[in-house]
Amino acid sequence: MSNSFGKIFRITTFGESHGVALGGVIDGFPSGIFVDKEFIQQELDRRRPGQSSISTPRKESDKVHILSGVFEGKSTGTPIGFVVYNENQHSRDYDSMKDCYRPSHADYVYDQKYGRRDYRGGGRSSARETVSRVVAGAFAKLALRQIGVQISAYTSQIGAVAVEKSYKDLDLSLVEENAVRCPHVATAERMIQLIEQVRSEGDSIGGVVTCVVKNVPIGLGEPVFDKLQSRLASAMLSINASKGFDYGSGFANLELKGSQANDSFCVSEERIATRTNFSGGIQGGITNGQDIYFRVAFKPTATIFKLQQTVNTEGKEVMLQAKGRHDPCVVPRAVPIVESMAAITLLDMFLLSKKDHIF
Amino acid sequence: MSNSFGKIFRITTFGESHGVALGGVIDGFPSGIFVDKEFIQQELDRRRPGQSSISTPRKESDKVHILSGVFEGKSTGTPIGFVVYNENQHSRDYDSMKDCYRPSHADYVYDQKYGRRDYRGGGRSSARETVSRVVAGAFAKLALRQIGVQISAYTSQIGAVAVEKSYKDLDLSLVEENAVRCPHVATAERMIQLIEQVRSEGDSIGGVVTCVVKNVPIGLGEPVFDKLQSRLASAMLSINASKGFDYGSGFANLELKGSQANDSFCVSEERIATRTNFSGGIQGGITNGQDIYFRVAFKPTATIFKLQQTVNTEGKEVMLQAKGRHDPCVVPRAVPIVESMAAITLLDMFLLSKKDHIF
Amino acid sequence: MSNSFGKIFRITTFGESHGVALGGVIDGFPSGIFVDKEFIQQELDRRRPGQSSISTPRKESDKVHILSGVFEGKSTGTPIGFVVYNENQHSRDYDSMKDCYRPSHADYVYDQKYGRRDYRGGGRSSARETVSRVVAGAFAKLALRQIGVQISAYTSQIGAVAVEKSYKDLDLSLVEENAVRCPHVATAERMIQLIEQVRSEGDSIGGVVTCVVKNVPIGLGEPVFDKLQSRLASAMLSINASKGFDYGSGFANLELKGSQANDSFCVSEERIATRTNFSGGIQGGITNGQDIYFRVAFKPTATIFKLQQTVNTEGKEVMLQAKGRHDPCVVPRAVPIVESMAAITLLDMFLLSKKDHIF
Amino acid sequence: MSNSFGKIFRITTFGESHGVALGGVIDGFPSGIFVDKEFIQQELDRRRPGQSSISTPRKESDKVHILSGVFEGKSTGTPIGFVVYNENQHSRDYDSMKDCYRPSHADYVYDQKYGRRDYRGGGRSSARETVSRVVAGAFAKLALRQIGVQISAYTSQIGAVAVEKSYKDLDLSLVEENAVRCPHVATAERMIQLIEQVRSEGDSIGGVVTCVVKNVPIGLGEPVFDKLQSRLASAMLSINASKGFDYGSGFANLELKGSQANDSFCVSEERIATRTNFSGGIQGGITNGQDIYFRVAFKPTATIFKLQQTVNTEGKEVMLQAKGRHDPCVVPRAVPIVESMAAITLLDMFLLSKKDHIF
Repeated sequence: MSNSFGKIFRITTFGESHGVALGGVIDGFPSGIFVDKEFIQQELDRRRPGQSSISTPRKESDKVHILSGVFEGKSTGTPIGFVVYNENQHSRDYDSMKDCYRPSHADYVYDQKYGRRDYRGGGRSSARETVSRVVAGAFAKLALRQIGVQISAYTSQIGAVAVEKSYKDLDLSLVEENAVRCPHVATAERMIQLIEQVRSEGDSIGGVVTCVVKNVPIGLGEPVFDKLQSRLASAMLSINASKGFDYGSGFANLELKGSQANDSFCVSEERIATRTNFSGGIQGGITNGQDIYFRVAFKPTATIFKLQQTVNTEGKEVMLQAKGRHDPCVVPRAVPIVESMAAITLLDMFLLSKKDHIF
Repeated sequence: MSNSFGKIFRITTFGESHGVALGGVIDGFPSGIFVDKEFIQQELDRRRPGQSSISTPRKESDKVHILSGVFEGKSTGTPIGFVVYNENQHSRDYDSMKDCYRPSHADYVYDQKYGRRDYRGGGRSSARETVSRVVAGAFAKLALRQIGVQISAYTSQIGAVAVEKSYKDLDLSLVEENAVRCPHVATAERMIQLIEQVRSEGDSIGGVVTCVVKNVPIGLGEPVFDKLQSRLASAMLSINASKGFDYGSGFANLELKGSQANDSFCVSEERIATRTNFSGGIQGGITNGQDIYFRVAFKPTATIFKLQQTVNTEGKEVMLQAKGRHDPCVVPRAVPIVESMAAITLLDMFLLSKKDHIF
Repeated sequence: MSNSFGKIFRITTFGESHGVALGGVIDGFPSGIFVDKEFIQQELDRRRPGQSSISTPRKESDKVHILSGVFEGKSTGTPIGFVVYNENQHSRDYDSMKDCYRPSHADYVYDQKYGRRDYRGGGRSSARETVSRVVAGAFAKLALRQIGVQISAYTSQIGAVAVEKSYKDLDLSLVEENAVRCPHVATAERMIQLIEQVRSEGDSIGGVVTCVVKNVPIGLGEPVFDKLQSRLASAMLSINASKGFDYGSGFANLELKGSQANDSFCVSEERIATRTNFSGGIQGGITNGQDIYFRVAFKPTATIFKLQQTVNTEGKEVMLQAKGRHDPCVVPRAVPIVESMAAITLLDMFLLSKKDHIF
Repeated sequence: MSNSFGKIFRITTFGESHGVALGGVIDGFPSGIFVDKEFIQQELDRRRPGQSSISTPRKESDKVHILSGVFEGKSTGTPIGFVVYNENQHSRDYDSMKDCYRPSHADYVYDQKYGRRDYRGGGRSSARETVSRVVAGAFAKLALRQIGVQISAYTSQIGAVAVEKSYKDLDLSLVEENAVRCPHVATAERMIQLIEQVRSEGDSIGGVVTCVVKNVPIGLGEPVFDKLQSRLASAMLSINASKGFDYGSGFANLELKGSQANDSFCVSEERIATRTNFSGGIQGGITNGQDIYFRVAFKPTATIFKLQQTVNTEGKEVMLQAKGRHDPCVVPRAVPIVESMAAITLLDMFLLSKKDHIF
């Protein structure tokens, strides 16, 4: 059950970093949606390695092959199978790591849990798995577009360098304009400098992605265990290297009192709205029509090129010098992944909400 | 599907704040576990309103009735049904709110989603629903005890007042010694002062619960979508008023580089361990045997006793003066709820991990 | 996971035959449905023991208590918790069976699976569990009524005594007119005679329930694994003592060739229909708007009052003389249970089908 | 959710008859199982079209490509992705059917449900989808072998020609010796004659597959809704063209009384056994260690080469002359599919049963 996500709109993924291919099955996609293959490939290209000087030099064309579920350009309601073949495998880079556990990687726990592991490039634990999520997310976006939902994520912090402004004061159309995917140009430059510096040191750094969803229908999310924030948190914490999630006032406004943090209702343009939005568009687990916004924290890339202490598979302490190709910072490439998981979650909750009434 | 949680060990809850009863069904509880009813009631008592001067004066005995699944003192492997009857209902307190939407409550979205709502005390959206989670969590703790797992949560922040020390430097056996459930006595006193002050103002305040799990078996959690942190985040964000989750280094250590935040492996007492634990006991989504620790942020109680602007069910702007009985701060009573959801999640993942091997 | 049924409209049940109570949680019931409590109790009364001379003399009022999810007479969209307390427990009847395994009962396998069992009246394996299904089925019928769906089951065979006519040639409004629930009066009389005869011998007999669903919306059921017949078969084979399921042409028309058994399409009253209905209203797993009809086979009641050979819990061969109160034939009381499971399945598939389109 | 089957060992399939490829994802397969690729291909070859004079002349090599989850010859515990490319597509055969609804096919209901359909060869509703089930079933068999479970299915009836003997009196090692997969040689010959006759008439015929499972661990299956027979029935009724399922005494022994049909316990070779096995190896939904046996009824192939009346997509009555390549009887090729679904179900329930105890 571990490789599926979603209740009704449900994705199932497979594939290892250095195996034959990655891919998945998208189930529950509504019928009659125009499947814009160019858009899907563009989304994958946003996630692709080797886009800029601050990402891994691994080159993959990451071309998606859609194998089913689309007929004469539109979805048919049947499951969409897809594969992305691996191409640029330097599996030998990992031979030296075969017998040793890389710090803060999944090598040790996979060996303990399963009694074996595909050690090449992290196998199933590699972030390369997110290729499949971006394909599924692109499909979800195509459906959500039809009901007007817009999802935009951006890099809001790298190390200690943070965008100070709220998303409302940023021009989110600028996200793709720079390598770090930060719409605040001056901050973006400082972020890029920081990443280049840690890379030159053979080190790595983490940060935060902020995601904004506009024009959300009211009523998405279910009471109690499938509150929308619970589904979103589950989605975001399933992304490799993520360490935290908050939405609305989150961890950042704990000094505010109820009288300051409550969102009073008002009537605006003949519709019920709220004057503030500390709720992040979700009340009681259910969307209220205001913008959803949330943050996802990412740790520094675990693979660094400094000599590290570790233990080998025989339980002896050894020194490790990493090889391979890795981003010094995963955050910019996490931006489309966060958007994808948000889209998957929202489409699922949208379709689920249809059960609320008999007619 | 919204009222169940868990893959194999699975709880399903029902009940509204001012309805006849709350309760639930616990499915997948292993056979042969001694069902310590006194312990279960004690856990419920920790969650009960009216425990101290800083919590709501609503008085409920919250006595749990176990209706099935236990025979001659032990679990039988069949589902455990239970109910907790509501007693101290002052439903008339809510008559005035029937026609108006309380700010930052679920009133408006329930009406929008379902076309109606039980307005008495928040109905299904009331935190009184967590009664059922604490019962289920107590069962989970009874099973986890048998494999040595220990779960302890505590209040680590109220408003801007935070415990500065790591959980490792605190004596967690002191948690129940004060009304705010903070094991650092000096900080606890400042927290209580702050809560009493905001209460005297008719206001409210939020904070953070930190939870620590010790002696966790290695190998719990599933790759990709059921990473343990994803399941925990989902569990925690399903709790009323929670706004964020992080684990290990989380949101708080973003300035650290990989060379600082990586947990190097070592051999300690003939077992593989890590020198630091920024991973929070979870790597690649799977437990590595080190302590799990995570934080949950809670917003201020939405019900305050100051006059607030809002909108009524006819879409007119009105002023609202809340009645009813409410905690000025939910955090201390959230401590057993966080523990319960952690226990439910861990038992589920423990039982699920049994499928990893054929023998 | 074993005690829940349904994908979106989902019931979870608990309770043992001689425990405190049985009950359950109904999740995913649409909002705004009038909850006709009298109808729900009537449905339970149809299942109740002691209705006639051919059923068990166990007397239970089987009064259902609805604990949540209903407000001002209508469903609210939140889960419906309910309990039915056990009253007429003669647990001592079972003391003699505590240490021995009744033939063709679940005693032995429960002991093997769980290491213990509630031996009183079969515990969780008792057909008394179906009380909860009938409550949930009554709710489902209330919702299905609103879209016009009509479900009728009847006894079509007891032992070798079978109704020869098709359901189309029977007056299904007569089902409740006799104790055996067979709408063909002459056959009903022979069935009753047969049941009374086997009862007088201390023996038991099985039979068949036929179920008919009229006015079904087109498009219910999902391709591949959730074909409607798959969901119905799963539902029916989960009923105690059931041994088989078929629909449409089923097991009974195997000598027919394709040219005889194909349902040719025609236009009738300006709608597309089929001239025959060997498909049983389901094609490719999906309803086509014609009547659904299916059969469920039931074995003879396992408890008989003849001396039987068996084995005790110590593994010694012993003789067993049953006590307790049991129907000599479960089929008449299975009629409302079959209807209930059909209603639960159809409402679930109806709600699920809403995801087929984005609008 | 419609394209997945299983609770813990879970398969998800995709693909249409005349699309690019079919395939799927196998999730929850235990680690450390030797993946015998030759065996998997052999199983697929048993299902392949064009095996003999009584099956369709469509030629497909049906070669399976395993894309993930296997490393150095053994399973790793991560999901197994696989594809089978379509090769021998005569899509033009279906051009004439584009605008008309073939009787007793899914054409009409797909159009009604989804507003469109891939009309080529039945699209997703084609039995070609079962390719993916046979791959997954082969994996399940590899795991079940390690715990000794043996699954054998055979053709027990074609039209009115039935094997009279019980499976216990047949040599099941002979199943693959003839084209119809019936181990009783004289009956097999009559079956083949019947199939050749109906084929020469451009007609088709149905029949029954019987499946036997030996050496089953005690304790598989869950009380109430996941009774083993419920899971098996669900699995079997999801196979294309299946119309019924029964197990043990089933529909065939309804004239027997309880005293005749009860399976009395005895001690045999120092183990508890039953003297008869009308229970079909399952009591109270749980395996008792005796042989499981069940039957699956299949209707005649819907595609026949006689002129048929039908309706076109514009709602006009028309005559239809089928083209394409089809088996006159699906039963022989259904044998490996029935085995596969049985294997998938049993491995799932075996892994699920591990949760019964904490240790």
